[in-house]
Formats: sequence, C-alpha cells, structure tokens
Amino acid sequence: MAAALREAVRSGRLAAGTRLPPYRSLAVDLGVARNTVADAYAELVAEGWLTARQGSGTRVAERVAAKPQRVPRKGPGREAAAHDLRQGQPDATSFPRAAWATAARRAVTAAPHDAFAPANPQGRPELRRALAEYLARARGVSASPEQIVVCAGFAHGLRLLFGGGVLSGSLAVEPYGLPFHRGILADAGVRTIPLGLDARGARTDELASHPGTSSRRGARAVLLTPAHQFPTGGPLHPTRRAAAVDWARGRDGVVLEDDYDGEFRYDREPVGAVQGLDPDHVVYLGSVSKSLSPAIRLGWLVLPPHLVGAVLAAKGLREAWTGVTDQLALAEFIASGQYDKHIRRMRQRYRARRNLLVMALAEHAPHIRVTGIAAGLHAVLRLPPGTEAATVKAATWMGVALDGLAMFRHSGSPEPHRDGLVVGYATPPEHRYRPALEALCRALPPLPDA
Amino acid sequence: MAAALREAVRSGRLAAGTRLPPYRSLAVDLGVARNTVADAYAELVAEGWLTARQGSGTRVAERVAAKPQRVPRKGPGREAAAHDLRQGQPDATSFPRAAWATAARRAVTAAPHDAFAPANPQGRPELRRALAEYLARARGVSASPEQIVVCAGFAHGLRLLFGGGVLSGSLAVEPYGLPFHRGILADAGVRTIPLGLDARGARTDELASHPGTSSRRGARAVLLTPAHQFPTGGPLHPTRRAAAVDWARGRDGVVLEDDYDGEFRYDREPVGAVQGLDPDHVVYLGSVSKSLSPAIRLGWLVLPPHLVGAVLAAKGLREAWTGVTDQLALAEFIASGQYDKHIRRMRQRYRARRNLLVMALAEHAPHIRVTGIAAGLHAVLRLPPGTEAATVKAATWMGVALDGLAMFRHSGSPEPHRDGLVVGYATPPEHRYRPALEALCRALPPLPDA
Repeated sequence: MAAALREAVRSGRLAAGTRLPPYRSLAVDLGVARNTVADAYAELVAEGWLTARQGSGTRVAERVAAKPQRVPRKGPGREAAAHDLRQGQPDATSFPRAAWATAARRAVTAAPHDAFAPANPQGRPELRRALAEYLARARGVSASPEQIVVCAGFAHGLRLLFGGGVLSGSLAVEPYGLPFHRGILADAGVRTIPLGLDARGARTDELASHPGTSSRRGARAVLLTPAHQFPTGGPLHPTRRAAAVDWARGRDGVVLEDDYDGEFRYDREPVGAVQGLDPDHVVYLGSVSKSLSPAIRLGWLVLPPHLVGAVLAAKGLREAWTGVTDQLALAEFIASGQYDKHIRRMRQRYRARRNLLVMALAEHAPHIRVTGIAAGLHAVLRLPPGTEAATVKAATWMGVALDGLAMFRHSGSPEPHRDGLVVGYATPPEHRYRPALEALCRALPPLPDA
Repeated sequence: MAAALREAVRSGRLAAGTRLPPYRSLAVDLGVARNTVADAYAELVAEGWLTARQGSGTRVAERVAAKPQRVPRKGPGREAAAHDLRQGQPDATSFPRAAWATAARRAVTAAPHDAFAPANPQGRPELRRALAEYLARARGVSASPEQIVVCAGFAHGLRLLFGGGVLSGSLAVEPYGLPFHRGILADAGVRTIPLGLDARGARTDELASHPGTSSRRGARAVLLTPAHQFPTGGPLHPTRRAAAVDWARGRDGVVLEDDYDGEFRYDREPVGAVQGLDPDHVVYLGSVSKSLSPAIRLGWLVLPPHLVGAVLAAKGLREAWTGVTDQLALAEFIASGQYDKHIRRMRQRYRARRNLLVMALAEHAPHIRVTGIAAGLHAVLRLPPGTEAATVKAATWMGVALDGLAMFRHSGSPEPHRDGLVVGYATPPEHRYRPALEALCRALPPLPDA
C-alpha cells in the first residue's frame, strides 16, 4: 500500500497539496485494517512524500511539480481590449450574487425529492409557472406553463426548432442579424431569405408577395426581433407586426420572435411581444443571457400548443442540458420579486449609460448620428459611406473593441450596406464606462470640412 | 392605462393571483406620474379586477380562469410503477441538498466577476483544478486541468467527440451497452462494431486481428466500461486493459473510457481508470449523474493533449450548455471534501442494498445466480434460457419496473443472447427498498422441478 501511494505521488497523479482522506474512512472503503493505512501514511510522512499537520489532515507535500505545466489556453474568444464596447453582454460585475445565492439555497432546500431524479425535458414546473406569470405581466405573452419548454438559451432553442425537425425548409429573416445564429441555421441546412428593412422595421409586408415566402414550397417561418431590431435598433411597426402574423396565419406558418432584450426599454412602456397577437402562430424565444448573465444557461420557448410535442421529441426523453438547480433558482428568483428588482436596477443603469453615450457624441462628434437608442444594450452610430472598416480599425488602436454593421449584414440582403458602428454599452464595469466613451470618441471620423 | 390593464386581466394574460409591481416603481419604469398608475390600480380594484391587501400588494383577483387548463403532459418517461428497479439512477432522496446549497452559496459569492461574463467552453478553472486533483486521487487518472473539458454529461461528451468531427468512422464497442448511447452514435453516422465478451470482460484482444478494427480503414477507437462492464457487471481484466491500450497506441487511435460508476466498488479497492496507463491514448469520460444526480448536468472529458483543441472547436466559442453556477458549486463541493463524504455515504448505503439483494435471492430464489455485484448501482440476475421476457412481464404485474438484458444487447453482437434481468438497486428511497425486493422475488421463475 505504501508503495502504491509513493508511486502516485512520484508520478504526479496525487498533486502537491492534495488532502488525503482520513485513514479511518480510507480503511473502511478499502476493506483493510486501520493500522495498514495508518502505517502507510506514517511511512510516507517519514519519507517526506506526505505532510501531516494538526487540523489540516494529511496532504501531499509541496515540492517541484512532477510535470511541466502546460500553457493555459485562451479564453472564450474575447481578447483583452482596454475597452469592450462589443454588443450583447451585460455588465458581469452587476450579477446579483447575493440575491441569486439566496434564491438558489432556498430553492434547492425546498424542492421536492423528484427534482433530483432524471428531469423532465420540458423544464421544472416551478420555473414554467413563474415564467408564464412573468412573461404575461412584463412582455404581454399569453401562455400557460404547458406551452413553455425550457432550454439552454436562444441558440439551443433555434437548434431544437430546426436541427430537431420541428421546422424545416427555408426561413425568412431580417437583413441584419447575429452571424452566430445564421451559422446555426446553415448547419441545420436551412436556407435564409433576407427581407428588406426600412424605418418601420423589417419588410414583413413583402412576405405575402415574395416568391420565397409565398410560393407553395416557400418559407413558412420568419425570424424577427420585434422589440428591438438586432442590431439596427428600431421596434417593428404595428402594421408590420400585423403583416407578419397575418402571413403566418394564412399559410399555416409561424413567426419566431427573438425577444433578446425586450425588458430594456428606456423612454416609454416596453413594446409588448408579438406573441400576444396570435399565440397559435408565434414561437416566442427568451433567455436570461441579457437580463442576468450568459453564464446562466437558461432560455425558454413559448410554443403554439400544436408544436409542444415536436419540440419535446427533439429534446429527448430526459433533460440532458439544463441543470435543475438553476431552473429552481430562477423560479424562486422570479417568484420572490428579485428578478423584477434586478431588471429595474439594470434598466436605470443602462439608461444612464445610453444617455452618457448620446451626450458624449453630441459634444465630441455632433456629425455622427446615433440610432436605435430607445431600448436594448447597444446603439448604432451611422458613419459616412466607406468609413466603417477604417473606424473599427482606429477604435482597435485606441484600445476599443467593437464591431461594424457589416458583420451583421446578411450576404444576400437586398439592402445596400449602411456604414455604422454597433456600440454595446452594457459590458464595461461602471468605473470603466466613461473612459471607454472617451476612447470611442477619439476613434470616430473627424467632422467633414465645411 | 386602466383600459390596457383591464384587457390584460380579462384576456387571462395577467393570471389570477399575479402580483403587480408597486405603483411607484411601475411609474418610474413607464415614465409616467405616480398618480396615473395609482389611479389605474384604484379603478381596477374598484371594478373587482384587482385586489389590494396590506402586506401582499396588489394582485389580480381570483376568479374563473379565462382559459381552460390544458392536460399536463407526462413526465420524463419513467411511468409510475410501485417499485422502480431500473438501472442507472441514484436515490433522488439522498441528494445532499444542504451541503450542495452551502457550496453553491459560497462559490457564487466568492467567484471572480468574470464568472458571470460569457464562459470559456473548456469549463471553469476552479472546477478543472478540483477534478484533476480528485480524479487523480480517487480514480488514478493522470491529467492536468488543461486536458479537461467540462460538458453536460456523458451523452454530450459522446456528441462532442463524434458529432463534432473530433473522431469519425467506425467504433468498436462492447456487445452490451446503453441503447441511448448507440442511438447517439447512429445519429452521428458512426458504425459500431461489437466485440466479444467473456469472463475477463470485452474481448479487446480481438482488436488487433478483427478486420473491422485492424484494417487500414477500420475503427481507430473503442468504447469501453472498464471499471464495471455495463450492464453485465465485470471489471475489465488487466490483460484486456493492456490489449486495448496497445491497440490504440499501435494504430494512432484512442480508448474511450466510460467511467460511469467507478467510485462505487464495495469489497476491495476501486479499480483504477485505464486512462492512467496511457493518458495520450485514452479519453476518460465521467459525470455526476450516478454520484450526485442526473439533474445536475455536469460531466467531463479528460483528453489526450492533442485532442483538446478539436473538442473545444466542436464545443464552440462560448459555453452554450453548462451553467457556471453548477460548475462553481461542484468545484467547491469537491474542494471542501463534501464530494468524498457523499460518495462514502452512498457507497455504504448501496453496499447494504446490494447485500440485501444477494440475501433475498439466496433465501427466496437460490436457483437464480446473481452477477456483477462487486461494484456499481445494479446487478444482473441470470435466468434460464427463454424466460427473460416472461419474467420482465411478471415483474410488471408485481408492480416492479426493470429491464431484461436483451434491450442492452447490440443487435450485431457475435455473442449468443443470455437471459437475464438488470436490477438497479439505487433508485428506490430507503424505506421502499425491502418491499421492492420482496415484489421482485415473487416475480422470478420458480425453482425447476428436481
């Protein structure tokens, strides 16, 4: 036994500092006499392989590591920039740790035993009830808990719908959107048909006449960001909402409503979800990625009743993705009012940041028009034609990470490209936000000669 | 404003009992005067749509639901049986709620801010460090944290390896295994080649000569359950371990080691992982599904260094699946010694259940041989040829849910079918276990005539 232990330490399998189990319990587990283990420990302590200290138990001695450490790998693709003004990520320093921890503790303590058995892929009933109530109140969504399927975020929802065989064929989309989502659709073999875009939002009025969305074999689904077009920023006009729903109803199709930041509207009442207009022809998708943190992998689909079975079939017999503890914690977080409180707090904070952005531009770059500021976690700065790429590069030199509009444009879009910057104002910690704005303003194209 | 509220209640969008936000904060959010909101609330209270009570705020009045409730859907596929002796699920009533909640609270409170930014798909460094230390100590796994990739469970790991393009082509497998896993492999287009099985475990000695695993285009990977063949129950003999590793080394291939219940060995020291023999040619897969709960979606791959990049590429730029809170909680749970403590406690409990099973059979069905009892959460009862299906049916009549060996058998297996029952002894709560055994014994085929 001592020899085996020694070899484990020598080879590095037992790392320096590792605490060994108490010899009594190890003896029970191995089915040997206590003395056998105690003697082996003592021998290795004597040889210097282990150290025994009152209170901290027996540990592997600190010494030169047996193996060279490998170079740590890079992070998740956000290289270090002094100022991160990319879109899409809430301020990580504002995560409501204490309230979340309290909700999690309460929920895990109070949950029924079946919460720790293999989980229902539809999601915990506590969470679906809390979501049905919250989404009705905050977003005008009309849903019973039975229409909700919990998932691991918007991307997972999209994969379930298209990779899982619930929907197929082609899909009408907005001419701007997240390349990541287009990639998921392409991987699932979905052809995307970009609509036009004007001051009223996506040209859903074209759906009924466009050959790709009105022919017998054309698209039967359209993916929209009605509350806040991503990333250009406008809300979808009521007539366009109606047109989308009418089209879906008329050809037995669905509107996919990506409500990614619907809670964050600053100057007026939030724009309610399209889903409320026709719950039988709209699939509503939401998540906590913007409202809480993308590190909590929780999203939801609110489905027309006739699609629930197909989505569950795509998800599989048991929940394989979304952890039950987070589901229970979020249910408690919503039911206790903490979610509303957090949203209100963040809405105030982001509104203040948006106002600072608008004021900084008014002062230092009055020739740059800023759009899409009524809602969300980002705005779009319109740039003179042909200056986008150079401005993004200039920003990089100033230590500012952000993206131009070009990367969000669908390559088949009928719209001419518009030069612009997508400025996310949610990501920096509070104290780093003003310096980020100053750096941004220095990178913008100068006033054209009068 | 009152009209909009009224309509929301009338239509059922605001469900009975829903708590409305305090009028002060709603007024701030909507950017209207407090009185506007207060008046609207008062009007609807007067009309009976809302109720206002000291201490519980303003709520939607209880009344007949606007919509008929839909029939609740079925659970995750385990229909109610009086006694659940299916394999694979730990006792849900034994989940260490208090210790887990404490670990989660501590971890979420102490985590650095970057824990709530988009997560690294390799997994939190805290968890990978804790796993490297634990797996070395408990399972003989030789790994640095850089070789570990966190995932959402074994099935996710398998999907990353085969659906993600890390490995491809065909795969040698044991002649018995989980149909769910075979389904994942089939969906990924992987052809499986079943090996033989004898008293020493899977016939890995055939790998070097079998045309499907030795030809130039043959399989370069073999999937094994070395600690405890699933579900027949034996450990893989040392010569067979060596043969598997030698074969992988000789043709630039890998052994996939499914260590699904390696911690639960009852009479002797746990059988260490094959991975320790050759970390460059073994992919080790583990999860908390048996040790804690399948409701916690956490698993891990310990990879040869040259495969880490490919698995991360398959996983994507950001963590899209595994929630960070569970990762942090498990890291703390392991580091604080609670994981070891829980495993020891459950090992004792499952050992006692195994002993009860063996004794019940010795007493009531001495003609039934029980195998695979040295480890794990299930045993196999050998049945007279041709009696398996009838016995499973008899068990169903006795209120006992369990599976016969047939459903685990690979359809292309060279082995003749063996009649048997797979008896999971982990799932029932403590007080239901003895009655389950009694019902099982009543369902077994009678003693053959002497």
